This record gives sequence, structure tokens and C-alpha cells, in this order.
Amino acid sequence: MSSENHLRLFTGRAHPGLAKEIADILGAPLGLIHLNTFADTETHVQIEESIRGANVFIIQPTCAPVNENLMELCIMLDAFRRASAGQLTAVIPYYGYARQDRKSTGREPISARLVADLLTTSGADRVVSVDLHVAQIQGFFDIPMEHLTAATTIVNYLKTKELADAIIVSPDAGRAKLAEKYAGVLKLPIAYMHKRRSGIGGRDVEVLEIIGDVCDKTPVIIDDVIAGGSIIQQARALYKTGANAAYIAVTHGVLVGQSLERLNEECIREVIITNTVPVPDDKRILIPKLQVLSIAPLLATVIRNIHNNKSVSQVFLAQHLEFAI
Amino acid sequence: MSSENHLRLFTGRAHPGLAKEIADILGAPLGLIHLNTFADTETHVQIEESIRGANVFIIQPTCAPVNENLMELCIMLDAFRRASAGQLTAVIPYYGYARQDRKSTGREPISARLVADLLTTSGADRVVSVDLHVAQIQGFFDIPMEHLTAATTIVNYLKTKELADAIIVSPDAGRAKLAEKYAGVLKLPIAYMHKRRSGIGGRDVEVLEIIGDVCDKTPVIIDDVIAGGSIIQQARALYKTGANAAYIAVTHGVLVGQSLERLNEECIREVIITNTVPVPDDKRILIPKLQVLSIAPLLATVIRNIHNNKSVSQVFLAQHLEFAI
Amino acid sequence: MSSENHLRLFTGRAHPGLAKEIADILGAPLGLIHLNTFADTETHVQIEESIRGANVFIIQPTCAPVNENLMELCIMLDAFRRASAGQLTAVIPYYGYARQDRKSTGREPISARLVADLLTTSGADRVVSVDLHVAQIQGFFDIPMEHLTAATTIVNYLKTKELADAIIVSPDAGRAKLAEKYAGVLKLPIAYMHKRRSGIGGRDVEVLEIIGDVCDKTPVIIDDVIAGGSIIQQARALYKTGANAAYIAVTHGVLVGQSLERLNEECIREVIITNTVPVPDDKRILIPKLQVLSIAPLLATVIRNIHNNKSVSQVFLAQHLEFAI
Amino acid sequence: MSSENHLRLFTGRAHPGLAKEIADILGAPLGLIHLNTFADTETHVQIEESIRGANVFIIQPTCAPVNENLMELCIMLDAFRRASAGQLTAVIPYYGYARQDRKSTGREPISARLVADLLTTSGADRVVSVDLHVAQIQGFFDIPMEHLTAATTIVNYLKTKELADAIIVSPDAGRAKLAEKYAGVLKLPIAYMHKRRSGIGGRDVEVLEIIGDVCDKTPVIIDDVIAGGSIIQQARALYKTGANAAYIAVTHGVLVGQSLERLNEECIREVIITNTVPVPDDKRILIPKLQVLSIAPLLATVIRNIHNNKSVSQVFLAQHLEFAI
Amino acid sequence: MSSENHLRLFTGRAHPGLAKEIADILGAPLGLIHLNTFADTETHVQIEESIRGANVFIIQPTCAPVNENLMELCIMLDAFRRASAGQLTAVIPYYGYARQDRKSTGREPISARLVADLLTTSGADRVVSVDLHVAQIQGFFDIPMEHLTAATTIVNYLKTKELADAIIVSPDAGRAKLAEKYAGVLKLPIAYMHKRRSGIGGRDVEVLEIIGDVCDKTPVIIDDVIAGGSIIQQARALYKTGANAAYIAVTHGVLVGQSLERLNEECIREVIITNTVPVPDDKRILIPKLQVLSIAPLLATVIRNIHNNKSVSQVFLAQHLEFAI
Amino acid sequence: MSSENHLRLFTGRAHPGLAKEIADILGAPLGLIHLNTFADTETHVQIEESIRGANVFIIQPTCAPVNENLMELCIMLDAFRRASAGQLTAVIPYYGYARQDRKSTGREPISARLVADLLTTSGADRVVSVDLHVAQIQGFFDIPMEHLTAATTIVNYLKTKELADAIIVSPDAGRAKLAEKYAGVLKLPIAYMHKRRSGIGGRDVEVLEIIGDVCDKTPVIIDDVIAGGSIIQQARALYKTGANAAYIAVTHGVLVGQSLERLNEECIREVIITNTVPVPDDKRILIPKLQVLSIAPLLATVIRNIHNNKSVSQVFLAQHLEFAI
Repeated sequence: MSSENHLRLFTGRAHPGLAKEIADILGAPLGLIHLNTFADTETHVQIEESIRGANVFIIQPTCAPVNENLMELCIMLDAFRRASAGQLTAVIPYYGYARQDRKSTGREPISARLVADLLTTSGADRVVSVDLHVAQIQGFFDIPMEHLTAATTIVNYLKTKELADAIIVSPDAGRAKLAEKYAGVLKLPIAYMHKRRSGIGGRDVEVLEIIGDVCDKTPVIIDDVIAGGSIIQQARALYKTGANAAYIAVTHGVLVGQSLERLNEECIREVIITNTVPVPDDKRILIPKLQVLSIAPLLATVIRNIHNNKSVSQVFLAQHLEFAI
Repeated sequence: MSSENHLRLFTGRAHPGLAKEIADILGAPLGLIHLNTFADTETHVQIEESIRGANVFIIQPTCAPVNENLMELCIMLDAFRRASAGQLTAVIPYYGYARQDRKSTGREPISARLVADLLTTSGADRVVSVDLHVAQIQGFFDIPMEHLTAATTIVNYLKTKELADAIIVSPDAGRAKLAEKYAGVLKLPIAYMHKRRSGIGGRDVEVLEIIGDVCDKTPVIIDDVIAGGSIIQQARALYKTGANAAYIAVTHGVLVGQSLERLNEECIREVIITNTVPVPDDKRILIPKLQVLSIAPLLATVIRNIHNNKSVSQVFLAQHLEFAI
Repeated sequence: MSSENHLRLFTGRAHPGLAKEIADILGAPLGLIHLNTFADTETHVQIEESIRGANVFIIQPTCAPVNENLMELCIMLDAFRRASAGQLTAVIPYYGYARQDRKSTGREPISARLVADLLTTSGADRVVSVDLHVAQIQGFFDIPMEHLTAATTIVNYLKTKELADAIIVSPDAGRAKLAEKYAGVLKLPIAYMHKRRSGIGGRDVEVLEIIGDVCDKTPVIIDDVIAGGSIIQQARALYKTGANAAYIAVTHGVLVGQSLERLNEECIREVIITNTVPVPDDKRILIPKLQVLSIAPLLATVIRNIHNNKSVSQVFLAQHLEFAI
Repeated sequence: MSSENHLRLFTGRAHPGLAKEIADILGAPLGLIHLNTFADTETHVQIEESIRGANVFIIQPTCAPVNENLMELCIMLDAFRRASAGQLTAVIPYYGYARQDRKSTGREPISARLVADLLTTSGADRVVSVDLHVAQIQGFFDIPMEHLTAATTIVNYLKTKELADAIIVSPDAGRAKLAEKYAGVLKLPIAYMHKRRSGIGGRDVEVLEIIGDVCDKTPVIIDDVIAGGSIIQQARALYKTGANAAYIAVTHGVLVGQSLERLNEECIREVIITNTVPVPDDKRILIPKLQVLSIAPLLATVIRNIHNNKSVSQVFLAQHLEFAI
Repeated sequence: MSSENHLRLFTGRAHPGLAKEIADILGAPLGLIHLNTFADTETHVQIEESIRGANVFIIQPTCAPVNENLMELCIMLDAFRRASAGQLTAVIPYYGYARQDRKSTGREPISARLVADLLTTSGADRVVSVDLHVAQIQGFFDIPMEHLTAATTIVNYLKTKELADAIIVSPDAGRAKLAEKYAGVLKLPIAYMHKRRSGIGGRDVEVLEIIGDVCDKTPVIIDDVIAGGSIIQQARALYKTGANAAYIAVTHGVLVGQSLERLNEECIREVIITNTVPVPDDKRILIPKLQVLSIAPLLATVIRNIHNNKSVSQVFLAQHLEFAI
Repeated sequence: MSSENHLRLFTGRAHPGLAKEIADILGAPLGLIHLNTFADTETHVQIEESIRGANVFIIQPTCAPVNENLMELCIMLDAFRRASAGQLTAVIPYYGYARQDRKSTGREPISARLVADLLTTSGADRVVSVDLHVAQIQGFFDIPMEHLTAATTIVNYLKTKELADAIIVSPDAGRAKLAEKYAGVLKLPIAYMHKRRSGIGGRDVEVLEIIGDVCDKTPVIIDDVIAGGSIIQQARALYKTGANAAYIAVTHGVLVGQSLERLNEECIREVIITNTVPVPDDKRILIPKLQVLSIAPLLATVIRNIHNNKSVSQVFLAQHLEFAI
């Protein structure tokens, strides 16, 4: 039987749970593929059904272990290309190396661009990703790149909360723009935080400065990635200044810090993330106030629209939110 | 005589004055090239001396008229490539289309990336530019890209002023990072501005909100580009709130607005720009408080170091400023 | 609704009138797109309807202002490519820079090739053009290039005239081949003109030489482009030699010369051009003997055939004319 | 010993005699390379000395057998590239497939462009060629392409003849431009020939038409390639019209026709060619009036200038001739 | 009529008989194309029917004369690409230059990779080939490459023979793997041959060594290519050791040796080849024990499956043979 | 100070010990570079000295963990390219993924080619590697690729042993060619091993078959990689057949198997490997009969010759060994 023009979903080993969720929503089973690691640590891929001419979507966030997941994705792309896939879309809900997006000092790589080139070289025809660290990463590709946002998903959840006295907090300069968007949609004020060196007692100390009045307000600290450490310091600083316990609203729950239990401190009210990267049960148990929203409905809709040649930007407009990122 | 390995400077028609200044500093005359526009508006280029094997630098900001200057640069690159230049560096002090750096809504181009591709296609081996709208544009290139900053030039000038009561002002979310850098180097506090829609009297009005205390302080509004209109509104808003007259400190003095004379209002104390784009005399006369700093010494140093295979990042470190952008 | 495989016509700002004509013939409305120029002269493009998977044709001659129109086309192509157009065809009835097709002396660009590379880099999958200055420009592309001719359109018009005593005139060496084709189809004799330096009275003067007997004949001067100046000199020279008033038969009515009213001199009987470039009303009024034929039917037929995967060369054979160029 | 920056000449099997001549002029011995053809007709190449970092020039006209010579050149380029040559220049005095330079009807290849792509893909960094059928072939390359002309060589020879009553003859429309150049340099008049169908006695016959007065004049028929057949018809037609016996002045003496002895007819006075392609002794004997000029001095000068990063266009200006083609 | 998605078969001049056989099996006529060689040895191609959007397969083994057939294929590809073929598959049953697959000493080309690049540059979207000298040549392509094997065809034929006392013989180290596959499928033992230098009587002589017991057994010497000379020496050596007359089982019957009649010696029982390259009648007559199996059914099945987006690897599994190569 | 043309050695984190050895031999210190892994597993690279224009060699075998080491190498290449290195050579003594060199069944990747493309995309100008699994991997690159062999190193060591009764053993079909080379240089006989399915007692069992007489001989089992498991089975099988304890002579001591202590069995006499991959002390202690030869002298010589534009193939000829692989 011909596979032409059929929608085919495949998953690497980075986040099969998310792929399964998407497959269930779309009513399209995950394709058969054998993925394993040889004793010498090489990745091996074998596609186990014909996909000749098919419209293939590979779901693989390049989360930790980043290099493993990225190379697995590249090798899968090569296998699908050589097996004559029709169109090859890499769905990368979390784009590893996104923060290495420029030379911040001399003689650094721009790894986020390098990753774009590696994916294209490996055979990707299109990339779908969510809440890139900076929107400019779209321009690192010369193939079509669908840049989605989880903000609508998070905003819809936040609206179920009491936000009358809330204030959006940008945790650093890089997030100021995202903060403005949340503030605009939720019609809330903004405060800004930034680190500065302060000369106390003769030597420089780095302190977190808060610009804007957060006293007696409920901060909603927004960010693209929560790794662990710095967000607790931010919440503590706000709390000390007289703010209420904060909501943390973040797309990618990377959560690699070593002291994740500190997220349970009273300065934090709830940690809202999505499942663009897998959130293992031990982390969920460790952080009871963790709220994991599913990104699968958004990705499923976008995959369906791409497959049917329908508008993707319409998906966001349909929710009456102005969250083009 | 062989031209191998010689440093050769050429200029397009965008900013010959700046090229002349650089040539004078380097003690290297501008190369002979004939540039003209035919009656049918086509650009024509004829290099009038052999540059075979030479290390060629073309100085051409892609300022207004952007498309003319950009195409002239592309055509020059093609002529030099076909004439067997050794290395071909495009020195683009102002990078037009830099603000079209991402798809802000669906179905937009990413013109800043397109420009990078057009330059590379035309034959550029390396690009030098100053204060790109976002540093990520470096990653739009896969050829070496030297991203310089005029901030050291501007800071050195600001230091000659009385800044005891000064405060750095980020005029919008996109400039928050740059503001932090200025604040760090000058050891000054920061305030943030952003636009928001405010529901007064039944309908939404866009208002400029100021976060941070600017009362009785001297604002230093920093930005990468000054076009005209919005900076006056920002200065006015600060002034109304009780701030002193503001310094405007901006790299690229694009100054295309139609009411430039409003820069003479009392809410603005001085408008500091550099000559990355030409500043014609009529604008200098129209705006007496305009202070134009020369970027030529910086570009001359960088060109000399590139030619001699010396470090470029060292140029900035030598000034004891942490202005990698 | 899916846009797959649908024919979609778009126009830039170079020649919307021609695009409208084509759209009317095809019964396909022009697509919605927002094109504007910012105050700083940057071009901005926003496609206003989903074209995902569609078969897109962009109609944009790169006539004056050439660089503006060319860059607008490149930026449009980038926007369509990133918006996942299925196939992207640039319909360029007049190809600017076509005469810069070789290095005529050392160290010149080959801008016509550069333009081909810029279009391909920007995302064009195919190019359609009319009466290129030389047919070899087809080979500047490695994407499919449909090279049409307006000669059939012009010949059909000429046949309505009394041509019993006519003679085809090649105005310079480059047009000799085109002249032979016209002469072959119309079964007319040929004369050739060329410039030569003649040593009269001690110094070289450039004179127009006529080879062939034009006395008492009605010259039909054929060319690809009429700019203005030189054609009048040619017609005058023929007239002085004893020829009747001449027909001028030219594809591209660029008409940029400063003394277009001289086309009204008695040595010229009629100036026949097509609308590959826009002919504004003031020029039509200034030159009453201007006859503008529409190229729209030809372009509409070719676009329809490309869309339906039918032969394009058949279009010309169907007219029983041997005008492959 | 290091080979860096050394000039190294190599020859394929197409024209070793010419390569030897060039090597002698330059005082640089031909490099050691083993070239042979296996029993199964595959070409095999083995470079027999280290050329790491050297400035390599390969001399190989792609004359008959064209496909053999072209493939041998491609394979040599691949071998030199993989052996780490510094710069790799293909010197192709005669460029095969040059006349397949456009689609003359639908569905033809553009083989001259294809050849350019094959050479670049194989590793050429630069190409040198002589009197391409059309100058636009330069634009088929995006690597530097030095387009030389043998016209100065031929003109210098012609000047030793009595040309007082001579007239330059363009044998067809495609050569009109070249004819003008010869006429300009030699200060001679021009006549044009072209084929046309003439309806005599009810059916179309193709006849050669002569435009311009050749009676009692000595025609100099110029062309880029002499294959054999058509030039005799042209000379006969001129002779019948009353012209004297003609000089034939052609760059590439391809001479493949089956009746070369007809060049001995009285309508032809002398056949002047260069040795861009090998002229075997049997042809020289067969055609006593053949005059073969050597292109080696020109190529040697150009190779030396390229190697020393000196101007190539200067070579032609130095002869006070305006023969940029 | 539209040609979209239609299967279209074309043949070059290398092996029209095979193409005809395939066309007959598929019930699809060979497409109209004019192929000829000009007097100056250039190849000329003219496609004589519209193939716009069609799924084109070109059948052309690059057998002797290799360079002629390869260039003809490249030029055909260029013509089809420029004529807007939908998908362009080069079916190359015998891949010339396959044995030049690595640098066996310093400064050699890797012609098999070069050929892959030339085909891709010329416009091939996919390549189909049979029994490449080494399977790694698949990796010389970055377009899909279908590597088929004639082994199933040959095995099916061998099974009709009495093989009770047979032994598979690998004629040299490079064929050891292929030998194992034959041995596995036919459940036969293996012997290995290799050349070694043996110091007899003071000087080195190259002798053929046989590892394994072949006495009184019927050798089946397998190989990818039979050129002529060496296989006779192998058969003789086996025969001298006490083996029976051998079967030769080889995919590509190149047969270029000068003493093909030696294949009639009594040490050889039957020479089994396929028609991946044409086997002219004179060779068939010269070697009565030649058995030519047709590869056409395999190629027809694969072409049909590619066209219908069905699995190609399934073709081999369906024969219950494990002959992935 | 200018860094132009200087030789600069850098090492990744895969095998700093080997890099240090090479640096010591060359008398060139390892360059300063900061390499670390972020908490989220991303690799970060910062070059800590100017390398503008320098001739940079990066030493990094892509051994286990393969994906980590490969991505680190790619990111380093990107950093060096963007920092304007003059020439960029990746020295990869062990090339991971080399065994994934073809599609062994349908729908597999060809990861060894993919790796070549990733390295080239990342900026490598040249690659140096040792004893690739198959020599054809050279053809996976279109940049210069120096393929070295450790065989001369190993042979020189073996010659210090008593080899009068030795026999070279090819452990499987893929190594037959390598075995022949060892046998030729050492003037020893060969035996071949291969796996086959043997129908004993009704069901298929895979057994190791030995072709050739090994009884009372000392086997030298040669291979490119020793992973662990299979080599013990081979040695055991030889031993059972009556052979002496075997030498194992292998280039790459990957040694990943779980039962490495079995290498101590009496069937194995000595395990000779090189340090193309790091051999940690615990493995050296675990396997007392392990003999690790250093590849550093070979790599140092080759790096020096490349830097000085001297022949690399000469390095091997100088040792009077014919070990081009």
C-alpha cells in the first residue's frame, strides 16, 4: 500500500510520552522505529515500516541529555531522508542550545545557529518549536520554521486563579518583552528585576534589584526556562520586599538544579510549567506545588494544520490572544 | 606590481566621508572605483585598479536609501570577487533591516537574515558591523562576523558630563539589556519604560508607563537607533513625571522623522549619536544640541587588526569596558 | 480551508496594473498582501492570507526604480518561502540588469548573474521572463527559467499594417539575431546599423553606419528595450539616407530618456511597445504615436500552463511562429 | 621541501603540446602526473609529486573528444583538490559545449552552464578561457573567470598583410559584435551575412544573403570557431558576388568537417587559426593555406600574472587594443 | 494534457534494449527524446514531449564508453530539470568508476564520489543502481539511493543446477563478504583466494593462493564485475588444485578483456551474468557458455514501487532472500 | 602579535593525554580553551587566545561517549571558524560511527556520511583520521581527508616478536583485505574466519568457521576495532582447533565489552592496541597482557607535514611499508 501524503508520527527517545499524547489526539498511531544505543555508545536507528512519500513528523525535544537527543534526531532525519520520506518535519518542543544564540564575548560559538545548520544538513524540511529563548532563532533557519508559544496555554490556566492583585515580573532584561506580552493580555502591571553590582562595605556584591512596586502584590514571574537556582533567589527577593508568594509561569521545566526542593519555600505559591520536556515522577513528588500543563493539544493542532496546508498563525488568533512571539 | 596581501579600502556611495576618515587614520588611500547610476536607475560599478589577491575592505552602511545602498554593496562584492580579491570584508557600520529580525506575526519575511544571505551570495568573506539591533544577527551569518559596539565611544563622552544624579532609561523592553550594560559600566540606576493600553473613559489608549523613580533625576535614554518620533514622547513623559531634561545616547542617528525640530524641546538636553550613518549639515543645523561622535577610530583599529590577524575583542578589553554585545 | 495546489497570484508594487489584467484573464483574484516603505526607506511585507502549500506566482518586473523593485521581490520571496508556499514562481516581465550580462572590461560585476543568484537565494523555485537582453541569461539560473517572447504579440500587430515596402533594421550588432527572426517571420529584408569612429577633419567622430539599402523603404527598427536617446538617432539616420518614417517595435518601453518628445519627430511613424513595464499616462500623452500592446494574455496563458503542468513551448508553436528566443 | 605558493603546471591528454610550449615560456617544467584509460574505458589519474599548498594550473582544452577531455579534467581537479592544492586553476583554451549556451527551443539542456557547474563541483577555484562563443558564459561561473581573446594575436598577424581593400565580414548574426570589434581596431568597413529562406519557384530555399558592398574587396571572415562546412559556403557566396579571395580569421581551429580539402578552393586565400586546440600534421598538410598562430605566449603571460597577483586586463591594454570581449 | 505525476521512462544511448524491456514490462512506452553527437563530438539532447511535473526515470548504465555515457546522462538530467520534471530518477544499472572508491595511494581522485556529485549537480533527485562494487558508495550520495542486488536473480538461476558438491569461492579479499552471503543463502561452504608474493628461487613471484578445500568440488566463483583476464586465472588455479570446472556468477558482464575466448577453457563450466550492461551478439557467439539473465524484471518492479510510493526493500524480502547489500 | 600561519594545537575533552603527547613531540604548547558542560548538559566552548589566521589543529577522537565528543568537536569547529581561524583541521584518530557506513537493510541511516557532513557544516577544512573501518569513508568527504594507518606502528612492534610459526587471521569477511596487507608485509600465511549457520540437530546454530590451516601455528588476529566479545570467541575457536595462543593486533582499543577480563584467558597471548582512544588505567590493570602503542609520533609527523605543505603519503613510504589503506 502506498504511503504517499499520509501523516506519520515518529518519536525519538527524548520524550515518548508527549509523542503518545499527540498521537492519541490525532488518532494517528506512532510509527514503528527501532532506536538503541550500542555498547560503544553509538546511536542506531532502523525505521521499521515504509514511509516512502509520507508526510513525516518526528517529535523530539533536544532536552537533557542534549547531545544525545540532538544526535539521535539528526540520525533519524538522515534515515528518513534516505528512505524517501515526502516531507520531513522536526517537532522540537524544547530547542536545546537556544541560549547560545550569539557571541557574548570574543571567540565563542553560536551553537543555536550551528544546531539549525546540523538539522538542515541532516535532512529536515521544516522545524516546529515552542518559546525559543529569543525569537530571532527563527532566522537561524532558511527552511520554514513554525515558532509556537505556550503562553496561551499558560494564560488560560492563570485565568482560573485570583489575579486581582497580581503583577507580572520580568526576572531579567532578556524577558522584558515576554513580560510585556503577559501584562498586556492579562491587563496587569509589570515590575522588572535585574542583577547589579553594589559597592557595600568596600567590595562589589551582586544584588537583585527590583524596579516597580511589588509590595502586597502577587508576583507572576514569567520566563522561558526554569532551571532551578535563580528563580528561587528572585522569588525570595520579591518576598523580602513585601510581595506575596509568587506564581512561577514558565514554558520549559528543565529543572536541573540540585536543590529543587527549595521550590517548596513559602515565597513560591505555584510553579506552572508545560511538558515540552519530560517531567519525571520523582520531580513531581519532590515539588508538590508543580503544575504541569500539557503542550500536546497545541502541537497536535499545529501538526494537523501543517499536514492539511491550513494556517498555523490562525491557531493563535482563534484563541483571541495576541501571542505571536 | 603585485597587490597580494595589501590592505585596500574602498567605499560605496553611502558614506564616503566616514571612509575617508578611516583611510586617513590608517594612512591608506581609498581605492579607485567608478560608481554611477544609469538613467534607467541601474547601479553600475567599475573597479579602476587591480586588486588581485588583495585584502579588500568595503565601507558601506546600508542606511537610507537602504535598498540602493544594499544593492550597490552586493554589486561591488560581485565585482571584487570576480576580480580575484584575496579576502573580501564588508564593513557595514549601520546594518539596514536589522529590526526585521524575526517573524513578529505569521507570514512575514526575516529580512535581516535575507540580507545576510544576499551578502554572502554576493561574495562577502567577512562582515563587520556596529551595534546590531539584536546581537543574534551575528548568527544569521555563517561567515565570520565582527560585532562591534559604539558604547565605549559614547560612554567615554558621557563621562565628561556631570552624571551624579543620572539614571539610565531603557525606552522599551527590547533595550533592557543594553540599559543594564550602560548602568553597570557607569554605575547608575535604571528605569524602564513601556507602552501599555489603558482603559480610560471606556476606550483603550496607549500610554507610556515608567517603572522606576526618575523624579529629579537626569535621564540618559539609551537606544541603538534614533529615528525621531518616539524618543521625544519618551523624553516628554519623563519630564512630565518630574525628571530633568534627558540625555539621548544612541549609536545610529538615522533621524528620518518629519519633526526633527522637536528634538529641541526643553525635555531633551543633548542628543549624542555617532556617524555610523551620514549626518548631513542641515540636520546638524536644525538640531543644535546634536553631538556627533566619530566611529572612525574604532573601525580603523578593527580593520587594522583584522588585516594583521590580531585580536578584535582585545580592542574592547583594552578600554577596560565590558561591552561585548 | 486548505490552500494546497491552488493557483495564487500576488503582485509587488512595480506593476500592479499588469497583475490585475492577468488576474482578470485567469479569473483568479490577486492575493492579499501588505507592502509598504518605512520612514527609514526599508521595505516591509506582510502576507495577509494563508498560502501554505499553494502554487504562488509573484508578478514583479524589476523596472525602475530597479533596486527598490528587486529588493521588494526578494523580500516577498523570503516571506512566501517562510510561510510554506508550495511552489514559488517569480514572474519578471522585464528583467532589470539584463544588460550587465558579462565583464565588458576588467573588474566589472556580472550583475545579471548576481540578480539570478539573489532571486534563488531568496527562495524562487522558477522564474518567468520576457525577451531577455540575451538568451544566455537563462543559463544564469539553475532553477527552471521560462523565457518568453513578446515578438509574436508584436508581429501580430505589425501584420495589421501595410508592410509591402518594409525592411527590418537591426539597430546594433547585439540585435542582429532578433532582426533575423523578425525578418524570417515577416518575410522582409534586413539592414544593419552600427556605430563606428570615423576620422573626419583630424579627429574621431562616432557615426552611425547603415549596411543595406533602406532608400524609399519603411524601416521597422526592432529592439528589446527602448530607453529613448539612441533610437531617435537611428531613425534620423535612416530618414536622412532616404528611408520613410520608421516603425519602432520594441518589447520593453523603459522610456527613461529626458527628451522623449523627440519621438514625435517625423522620422518616426509609430512606436510599438508592450506593457512589460508600466507606461504612465503622462508618457502616453507626451508621445501620441505610442502604441502599447498588452503582454497580459501571454503571461496569463503561460501561468495557467505552468500551473496545470502543460507545455509552455507549445504556447508559441500554437501561434505558428518560430519565436523561440 | 614545501610546495607552498609555487607555480605548478600540469597538462591533461587533450593538448600536451600547448602545455609544453607554455611551460617553456614560463621556465616551469610540467608536473608529473600519470594519466591513462583502463580497458573498460574509465579514466585514471595519479599525481606523482606532492602539490600540497601549490598554485596549480591545469591546461586542458575540452576539444574533441569533448566528453573524454572534460571528464579527464574533472577527475584531475578532484585529485588535486583531495591532494590539498592551494589554488586550482583550470586553463581551458577551448571551451567545449560553448555553443549550447541557451535553450534555443523548449526542453533543451544548457550544457555550457552545466559544464561550468561540473568544473566547480570538481574543485576548480578559477577558470581561464579564450574567445568563448558568447561572453555571457563568464556569468555561468560564480568563481573568477578570466576571459581572454586571441583577437590581438590574430590582428597582429593580419597587420602584416595588405589590407587596404579589405572588409570585415560577419558570417552570421551571432558574430556581428565580434566583427565590429575587428572593424574598429583595423579601421575597416563591415559586411554582414545571414541565411534566409527565399521562396523561389514555389518552395523555400535557404540562401546566404550579403548585406554591404563586398565587390572587389578582400573579405576577412571572422569567427570564433571554424568547423568546416559553413565557412566555405560563405567564402563561395562572397566570391560569386565579386569579392576577392577571403581571409578566414578564427580563434579555434576545430576543423572537424569531412571535406576540409575544400578550404583549398580559390575563394579562400588564407585560413588563420590559433592552437587553442591541437592541429594535427595531417590537417596542416591537407590545407596548405592554413596559418596556425600560437596562443601560448598569451596564456603564459596570463598564468604568470595570475600567479603574481598582477592585473590580467592590463595584458590586453598593454597592446593598445580594446579587445575586452 | 497535463503530465503531472505520470510515470515517464526515458533511455539514453547506453542500453536502449534494457530500457525497452523495462518499458514492456511496465506497459509504459519510452518517452520521445532526440540524442545525437555533433561532428565536433559534443552530445546534444532534445526532449520531444512535455514532461512538466512528471515522474521521470532515465535508464542509462554508465558502461563503456564510460565518459560518453556519463556525460550524456548528466546532460539529459540538465535538460529534464530545466524542462520542469517533477521527480528525476537516474536508473544506473551499472555504475562506472565504482572501483575508484577511495585513495588507494596518495594523490588519487575518488572518482566514484565525484560521479555522485556530478549527477547531483546535474539535477538527479534519486539514483537506482545494482551491485555497486562496495555498498559504501550509497554514502557518496546525499540524495536517496536505492541499492539493488542481482544476487536473487542469480541465485534463482543457480538453484536450477546440481549444486550438491558446490563451494562458493571468493576470488579476492574484497569479495569475501559477498561470498559469505551467497554461501549463507545456498547453504554451501566457502573458499577464499588471494594473491601473494612468494619468494621462489630468489625473486618474488605473485601467486594465487587458495584457502579452503576445493578438491573434487564444483567452485562457484562469485564477483560483481567480470572484465576478463583475472577470472580465468582464478578458474585455472582452482582446476589445477583438483576442483571441477567452475561456475562464474557475476552481476556485470563488462567483458572488455582481449582474450574473451579463453572463457571457453574447460576449467569453466558456465559464465552467468546479467544484462546490466549490453552484451552484444558477437560476445554471445564468442562465448557459447555465457548465460545472460535479465535484470529488467527487477528494475521494472522497483521503478513501479518507487512511483507508487511502495517499499523497495520489500521487493527483496518477498523473495525470502536476505540479500540486502 | 599576529597569529597568522602559526601552527596551533587544541584539544577537546575526549583524549587530552594524546594531544599533550603530540604537543610535546612538536614542541608546540596546547592552545588555551575553556570547555565545560552546563547543568542542563549543554556543552560550552570559549577559546581563550586569539587564533585569527592561524593554522589550527583540533585533536578529538569521537570515541565514547560518541555523541558528546562529536558535538563538542562540532561546537569547537564553529567557535574557531567564527573566530577567523586560517585553516581548520579536525584530527580524529578514532572516527565514531565508522561502521554505520552503508544501509545494510532498508531504511537505515548512513551515519558515517552524516558525521562527515556535520563536520564540514561546522567548519572543518580538512580531516585527519586513522584506520577507518572502510577506506571508502574518505569519499564521504569533499574536503581533503588524510587517511593514516597504525599498521606500520603495529608491524614494527610485531617484528620484535618471534613470528616464525605465525599466521595472520582475518576474523571476518570485512577484514580480509587488511589481513592480506599484514600477511604481505610480514610474509606470513593467512587464515579466514567467518560465521555461518549450521543445521545441527534440527535447528540453526551460528558457528565460527575457520578456513585455512592454523594447527600448531600462532595466530595474529588483526582488526580495526576491538570491542571485546567477539574477539575472545575467535581466539577460543582457533585455540580449540589446535592453534597456539593468539596475538591480537588492533588499531582502536575501544574495549567496551562487559567481560574484558576474559581477554586474560590462555587462548590469547597479547593484546596489541594503540592509543587512538584513551585507555584508562583500570583497563590496563584488568588486562595485564594489554600492550598500548602510541600513535602520537605518527600524528605529530603528519601534522607537521601538513603545516609545512609537505607530503603526507611520503611519511608511510619512508618506512618502506606499503600500507596505504
